[in-house]
This record gives sequence, structure tokens and C-alpha cells, in this order.
Amino acid sequence: MDAAPDFTPLAEEAPAPHRAAVTGTLYGVGMGPGDPDYLTVRAVRVLERAHHLVHFCKAGRRGNARTIADAVVRDPAREWPLAYPYTTEIPADSPEYLAALAAFYDDAAQKLADELGAGRDVAILSEGDPFFYGSFMHLWRRLKDRFPVEVVPGVTGMSGCWTRAGTPITWGDDVLTVLPATLPAADLARRLRDTDAAVVMKLGRHLPKVRGALKEAGLLARAVYVERGTMKGEHVVMLADKPDDAAPYFSMVLIPGEGRRP
Amino acid sequence: MDAAPDFTPLAEEAPAPHRAAVTGTLYGVGMGPGDPDYLTVRAVRVLERAHHLVHFCKAGRRGNARTIADAVVRDPAREWPLAYPYTTEIPADSPEYLAALAAFYDDAAQKLADELGAGRDVAILSEGDPFFYGSFMHLWRRLKDRFPVEVVPGVTGMSGCWTRAGTPITWGDDVLTVLPATLPAADLARRLRDTDAAVVMKLGRHLPKVRGALKEAGLLARAVYVERGTMKGEHVVMLADKPDDAAPYFSMVLIPGEGRRP
Repeated sequence: MDAAPDFTPLAEEAPAPHRAAVTGTLYGVGMGPGDPDYLTVRAVRVLERAHHLVHFCKAGRRGNARTIADAVVRDPAREWPLAYPYTTEIPADSPEYLAALAAFYDDAAQKLADELGAGRDVAILSEGDPFFYGSFMHLWRRLKDRFPVEVVPGVTGMSGCWTRAGTPITWGDDVLTVLPATLPAADLARRLRDTDAAVVMKLGRHLPKVRGALKEAGLLARAVYVERGTMKGEHVVMLADKPDDAAPYFSMVLIPGEGRRP
Repeated sequence: MDAAPDFTPLAEEAPAPHRAAVTGTLYGVGMGPGDPDYLTVRAVRVLERAHHLVHFCKAGRRGNARTIADAVVRDPAREWPLAYPYTTEIPADSPEYLAALAAFYDDAAQKLADELGAGRDVAILSEGDPFFYGSFMHLWRRLKDRFPVEVVPGVTGMSGCWTRAGTPITWGDDVLTVLPATLPAADLARRLRDTDAAVVMKLGRHLPKVRGALKEAGLLARAVYVERGTMKGEHVVMLADKPDDAAPYFSMVLIPGEGRRP
């Protein structure tokens, strides 16, 4: 029989002389692709113990990161939702969007700073990995020089998707390109032609454009569409067999590599 | 107080009528970047229960994936090392290397098939994520049509490295390119010039070439070198400040993106 697993305690579990007593710690917690079984041991430990569990969401809705945490956290008293002023209502590169988001992050950072300054640990729940296209990064940038920070890496949404699609993404010396679907069609097609393997993220209303770019690059027959990978309502289909262009936020297209296979 | 975490049991823990009794399951277990705290809940559960724990290694050495498992598995009776016939002694694209590796994978797959056929679960320990440049894929390819398979995605080595480098890798609409350092210098330079963010993997003896390609692409000043990220002996330094070109297998270069930051 094996002994009890040997994982690292949080700072507040350590003997008193080793504690950083004055301020709380800002945690960026990678929540993984959706299935709570893919939380890391470290993420579970932080979720169990942090004073505040912050998650981003659309106004009036529960964020997906918070839903993942349900496997660990049943107590709603620690929840702290941050509702975006906009999600997809106006273009993400418009001055209005950028100004509203900047004000939103400034305000949220100030509120979190008050808690951290009072010695309370704040965990920001991040879908996938916190440093990979994560909203966490915008709060981290505003707080990292004033408070202790620990980032807990997570399984990315794309790993969850290629796992559930049942396909390796890169073999041997394959080059992998990760493309936001927001890029112009010509840029998408050019980059798709010039890589061995690809992941196209943030599909949403861009799926018709992505489908066109894949066709132009001669890759439509290899493209796999994955919706809500590892989550409830998961759906995997070859893109060529998908009859419509409806794609929720949690969907992506995979082009698996075909490199060296001894 | 929260209730006990609510994670999914393995098949053999399920009530008898739901068991697939005849053959064992082939597990590809993502072991994460190195720190055992970054194992997933699912990986820990599979490691605790599988009959055989298979890991790849260099002859006479303990594989890194097996070392990560030490946090969970102290019992050596279930260990099953698979020693590569070659690692870096001959070029990975030479006919001799490919033939030797193919024979090695064929032989290993046959031995695992015997165990799976006898109803024993086999877990293949994979550094990072099993479907992302993993040796697991070569056994999976040979066994997937004959036995039940479960792939457990993992935190990639690159996530572990950018976490410990303390830098987000992609912001906003950044394009990320993952490049094996084995590519020709001109190809590396061209691809580095044409991306917002990059990860250069499999450095080893290729670091002088990678350094040259980064210089040619005007990116040397932004390049971060990470050795053994999240592991014992971790070392993070700006590549421009690294005085030598020694780089172990577990090292990579990161070019963090600089995209939209409201």
C-alpha cells in the first residue's frame, strides 16, 4: 500500500515563522478545460482554502470557471462574481470596449487590493491556464507588484478538446499554430497553409470565416470541430460534417498534425 | 464547511453491472510539467489504482515521468520501465533510428497487449500532456483499436515554464507558434518573425542555432530561457543573459506575446 500523497501545503498551513503574515496572496487558479476531474491537486487546495473565490461572468449568469469549482466548493459565501461590462455586444478592438474594460479591471483590482491588504487570500478562477489568453492577466498586471502572487497552471481548453476528440495534436517535429478566429480571413488562410498542426480558438460568430479559410488552405477535410470539450453538452464532429455555423464561446477547431510516427 | 469533493470514480470502482470486465483499460496519464502538485485529480486516481505504471526512460536511468509519480506511488512493484534503444545518440530522422524505434514500440505494445488482454489496467505515464508530442502516442496508435482507452490530459511543460517565468504567454488576439528547435535555422527565423508569441521546445544541442534565429528575427531581447520549469533545479533567465549554450532536454525558450491589454 502506498503512503498518503505528498503534496505541498499552502502558506497558511505552514508553521507560523514561515508565514507571510501581513498581506494576503493573489492566486491565479487554472481551472482546466471544464471537467472538474482535470483540476490540479494544487488548484483544489487553493479553492478549498482561499478567503475569496473570484470569477468572471456575463451579467446575470454564472461563469463557467465557477461551475467547474462546484466539485470542490459548495459554500457560496466566498463567491465573488465580476460581471464584464461587455462580452460580445461591441467589437473587442473598439475604443469604447477598451475604455469600459480598462475601467472595469481598474475598479476590480482596487476592490481586490483592499482585501489583499487586509490579509485575505484572493483566488481568481481562470478557465484553462491563467497565463494563456486569461482575463486573470489583466488583474495580475495591476496587482503583481504590490502583493504576493501564485499562479497555478492548468490544463488548457485545447488539451481538453484534443483529448476528447481522441486525436494527438503534434507528432515528432510538427509545428503547432494557435490562431484566434478573430483574425482576418486571408491571414487565417495563410497561417493555416504554413503550419503542420493548428488550433483555432474563440470561434463564436467567426465560424463561417474560419470554414472558408480552411477550405482555401485545403484543410477542411482534416478539421475537427469540438464544442464544450470535457463539459456537459460536449460535441465532437468533423467540421465538414457539421451542417450549420453555430458555435458557442467554448468551441474550437483542431487540425491534428501528421508528423513522424515510427 | 464544504462537502467532500465530488470527482468521478474509475470503472473498477463503479457498481459491478457497469464494469467492462473482460479487458483492462489503457490509460495515457498526463503527468504535468514536473511539480507533482500539478497532477490532476484524475491522474492521481489512475496512478493510485492501475495495475501497471509504464514509463519511458533512457537505459539505466529513471524517467522523469516516474519521478513525478513519487508523490503518489511509493510501491515499486507496479513499475514498468521502457528504455528507449536510442535517445540522442543518432539523428531522429535517420532510417536506423526510425527502424529501431518502430521495433521498440511494436515490442512494447505486444507486451502491454498481453496484460490488457488478461484484464489488467495499464497506465502510461506521459510528461506534460499525452497527446502533445508524447511518446505515449506511439503505443496508443498500436493499441487503441483493440482495448478501451482513457487519455487524461495534463498541464503541458510549456504552461509550467511560462508560469514559473512569471509571464503571460498570449494576450488578446495573439498568435502563438510552438516550434521544435530541431527545425532548420532559416525556418525557425522566418516563423519567429511571423508570430506574436512563441515557444521553442526540445532545445538540447540546438540552442546556438535557436539563439541565432532569434537574433535574426530581432527577438533575442524578448526571449526567456527556462530550464526544468517547476522541477528541482529550475532556472529562469533572459536568454540574452545566459552566458553559455548548454541546455538539457527539459528546457525551452519563450517569447511572450504583447497583445491587447485594456
